[in-house]
Amino acid sequence: MSQTSKFINYFMAHRSVTIELISKIGEEHIEYKPTETSMPARALVTHMLSSFQKFVAVVKRGDASPMREKLEVDETDLNAVAELYTSETRNLLESLTVEELDRVIDLTAIFGMKISGRGLLQVAMDHEIHHKGSLFVYVREMGHTKLPGFVRKG
Amino acid sequence: MSQTSKFINYFMAHRSVTIELISKIGEEHIEYKPTETSMPARALVTHMLSSFQKFVAVVKRGDASPMREKLEVDETDLNAVAELYTSETRNLLESLTVEELDRVIDLTAIFGMKISGRGLLQVAMDHEIHHKGSLFVYVREMGHTKLPGFVRKG
Repeated sequence: MSQTSKFINYFMAHRSVTIELISKIGEEHIEYKPTETSMPARALVTHMLSSFQKFVAVVKRGDASPMREKLEVDETDLNAVAELYTSETRNLLESLTVEELDRVIDLTAIFGMKISGRGLLQVAMDHEIHHKGSLFVYVREMGHTKLPGFVRKG
Repeated sequence: MSQTSKFINYFMAHRSVTIELISKIGEEHIEYKPTETSMPARALVTHMLSSFQKFVAVVKRGDASPMREKLEVDETDLNAVAELYTSETRNLLESLTVEELDRVIDLTAIFGMKISGRGLLQVAMDHEIHHKGSLFVYVREMGHTKLPGFVRKG
């Protein structure tokens, strides 16, 4: 299995859980936030989906410019937004070459570090898993008690 | 830098944030849980700390037996428990050889998969980051508004 295919499996093992959690957010809970200073559910989900896409775009382009671009999605239903981003992110991941994975990108200005494409993909995963961990609490507070495991197995 | 040193830096970049969150849990919130079906704060923290230690012990031993062992810590203060586990986990990580990182371990019975030592260390990280993501919401609900980033930089 190529390095990219292996990473896509890893990505989807977590993203499929994110998508399942999103499917549990009812229309009435789209602006739900656990505390005054928390991100509302919709903002949290959009942040997760768009950030991953931007991280991969940075790996593809080799510089930080995609982080500053605003991603526009002409869709309000969160489930549809999730499907759209996931499909685009997969396509971008599939297009990555070994040279792009190995290339060191200077992100000193925004993250205070230089990092390889491969390293940045791990940061993208960590970022997704972190916010998904928060989202589990949100969804439980919305009244759901039957939740998936934190990662899909097999 | 050796593979193990690199991994220990990665581990500590997240564990130091876990420790900072734990330090914010006051005595009055030790049994706090966001919902009836959530893990209470103390149980969540203990689960995070002991699971990481067990994952590394599995990599060291090469079989699943450490997962079934009960870790006993003779300490009730959560900050002290965190320091104890972190120090032991670091020592165990430092002792890992390249052969142990490369060895494939049969975890079919408990996780439904075979996985390399290296792969299992990533699962341990993902598990920590996941629960830390939940812990952020707990700590915010305890009244804290100044929280660290999800990973320590640099």
